[in-house]
Amino acid sequence: MTEGSDINQQAEDIALQQARTPSSQSVTFGADQPLCLDAGIDLSPLTIAYETYGKLNDDKSNAILVCHALTGDQYANSPSPVTGKPGWWNSMIGPGKPIDTERYFIICSNVIGGCNGSTGPASINPDTGKAYGLELPIITIRDMVRAQAMLVDHLGIDQLFCVIGGSMGGMQVIQWAAAYPERCASVVIIASAAHHTSQNIAFYEVGRQAVMADPDWHGGRYLDHGTTPRKGLSVARMAAHVTYMSETSLQNKFGRNLQDRTAKTFSFDADFQIESYLRHQGMTFADRFDANSYLYVTRAMDYYDLAADYDGQLANAFMGTKTRFCLVSFTSDWMFPTAESRQIVHALNAAGASVSFVEIDSDKGHDAFLLDEPEMFDAIDGFLKSAAKAQGLPSHNREAENKEASS
Amino acid sequence: MTEGSDINQQAEDIALQQARTPSSQSVTFGADQPLCLDAGIDLSPLTIAYETYGKLNDDKSNAILVCHALTGDQYANSPSPVTGKPGWWNSMIGPGKPIDTERYFIICSNVIGGCNGSTGPASINPDTGKAYGLELPIITIRDMVRAQAMLVDHLGIDQLFCVIGGSMGGMQVIQWAAAYPERCASVVIIASAAHHTSQNIAFYEVGRQAVMADPDWHGGRYLDHGTTPRKGLSVARMAAHVTYMSETSLQNKFGRNLQDRTAKTFSFDADFQIESYLRHQGMTFADRFDANSYLYVTRAMDYYDLAADYDGQLANAFMGTKTRFCLVSFTSDWMFPTAESRQIVHALNAAGASVSFVEIDSDKGHDAFLLDEPEMFDAIDGFLKSAAKAQGLPSHNREAENKEASS
Repeated sequence: MTEGSDINQQAEDIALQQARTPSSQSVTFGADQPLCLDAGIDLSPLTIAYETYGKLNDDKSNAILVCHALTGDQYANSPSPVTGKPGWWNSMIGPGKPIDTERYFIICSNVIGGCNGSTGPASINPDTGKAYGLELPIITIRDMVRAQAMLVDHLGIDQLFCVIGGSMGGMQVIQWAAAYPERCASVVIIASAAHHTSQNIAFYEVGRQAVMADPDWHGGRYLDHGTTPRKGLSVARMAAHVTYMSETSLQNKFGRNLQDRTAKTFSFDADFQIESYLRHQGMTFADRFDANSYLYVTRAMDYYDLAADYDGQLANAFMGTKTRFCLVSFTSDWMFPTAESRQIVHALNAAGASVSFVEIDSDKGHDAFLLDEPEMFDAIDGFLKSAAKAQGLPSHNREAENKEASS
Repeated sequence: MTEGSDINQQAEDIALQQARTPSSQSVTFGADQPLCLDAGIDLSPLTIAYETYGKLNDDKSNAILVCHALTGDQYANSPSPVTGKPGWWNSMIGPGKPIDTERYFIICSNVIGGCNGSTGPASINPDTGKAYGLELPIITIRDMVRAQAMLVDHLGIDQLFCVIGGSMGGMQVIQWAAAYPERCASVVIIASAAHHTSQNIAFYEVGRQAVMADPDWHGGRYLDHGTTPRKGLSVARMAAHVTYMSETSLQNKFGRNLQDRTAKTFSFDADFQIESYLRHQGMTFADRFDANSYLYVTRAMDYYDLAADYDGQLANAFMGTKTRFCLVSFTSDWMFPTAESRQIVHALNAAGASVSFVEIDSDKGHDAFLLDEPEMFDAIDGFLKSAAKAQGLPSHNREAENKEASS
């Protein structure tokens, strides 16, 4: 075993430990409170791992639920114990930032089906005493949102001031707005869509087949075999990663630049920077993410089609809603192009909803929602401030300040 | 072994046989005529497998060289002995068609590095008596074109009336025009580019990693092990295939339609038609194509960068050319977008070359060049007729007719 694989093994061990016993907060619902899945199965026990930032005010009116994307986690504003990296949305969340930790109480939970402490395929199946693997029923976006609603109930919050997220997080936000309109004062949907397109499904199917083609996957029972389908998962991540960037951002960042060499090697080495970059992205992803979870979360996105639940009429999902909507898309995002956001905006208009929409000129592709995009911060900051005013939220969290002063 | 794998094995056996002893015409150049590769190695012996259609006229002025794309072959206008399918460009080539078999003598050769009879990684390495595998030096687009020039010499043709091809075929055409301007009276470059972009390299690197991740690949020595990296090659093809179609064509053809079922199965089965389609594309590709060849031909495309051979000035590749150029691009082709064709057109304009360029409105994506695109046929038909007139080619191949009459 090489030093590299030792390091990989350590990283994988930490990831598995966090998948089962997260160091974040968590709540477990027992047999008396099963989650009724779309697959027709009651899931129990159900653990939801989550982080919170800021303080809940006395009337519990300042809560924001942040929904993470495909391979994200609950560590939106704090370091991940798996990777040690800073919170994935530190640019958006913090004192004085659009999601202001001095004003709001922020909740971010790991999606079910994920691998950061919420119930997922690496969790122990109580019927067998072993990891679920593919015995875990298919999880849908609706299931993820139902689980989040149980968490919000558990926290004693009736109405969320806002639900916000990008990409798969945005799908959850849309689902919140459709399923629980009275519980969402406002929602922010970034770089997302109300369904997966054929092309979206196609790329994720490539990734799933890459995982399943790896003999170390063992039909999903790799934990029993002491293996992990690292190579397959790495290829899956590489394919997906290309779709998250725009052609322009790839060209600007890498172009045809060579990696640590002055001439092509006339071999299959990673001559080009883009090759080296992708291989690195694939391998580090395999260190931190559970392969079966990747199957589940991609499947959840593929299955999502909100209009299908409303006789094909997306507007019907939002009839009579009082929720305030904000949608953000990016010009160079070809996985969730502006046209997808516009479809939602049109449906909201048809439903007479309050909606603001901004398409931001960016060359960063789909990943823009995770990056430093001042125009996005400004748009969301303005929307949240306006929504807070409409809700009568004080501009400072006095309860929090008072508590701090008296403590 | 299931019946399916028996069929696969038969298909693979036929493919390997054709890779080594093609049923098409072929010429082998011995040690006295090695091919000097860009990798700095003399390749010998060198076999080039090719097909011809129509008849060469007496002054050998009516020859058209058709260059095939990444996974194409020499069977442009005749059935492939590997797949049994009709010629891949039957829509373009034939009596009365743009590439008129009653007027022109058409040559189509399998690229070197390929797997349909020209020297490639499945060919026997004379030094070892075993398949080359990765012992074959890296092949470049320039090498492919040098080999084609040897074939054209062998056929006794000084000047080709036209060199034509799409995608990787188009790269070969550009290289012909740059390397042998006096040997090309005209060229037609379809859905192509003078270099691979970072995004192009990224997708092919995903494919190569998928092949190499398959343990049945055995470092490229799978023929010695009696295995083939079917799963990895299949994933590679799936990823590439998505890039050949436009989002619109995928949506129109498949959308979110389910495959042979009325409801989702809540599993990882191929619920969606697009999944079933891609899996099928992947598997049938693995039946017919050599995995190592896939590495070589994708690498050839990645390495191609014509401007780099001319101090970064693409126009310098075409200075003083008398060749007549025709370029065709498709609006929905996102792998070789119109901007890439325009770069070549600008360079040709700067070089004072004769060039006509048409961007065709199509929703079929990159694959449009292989499909029924009447506007493409019209554009190429018009260009070839005009070029033939300028060359003084008779509108009928009298030599062919006379030969037929006297035979």
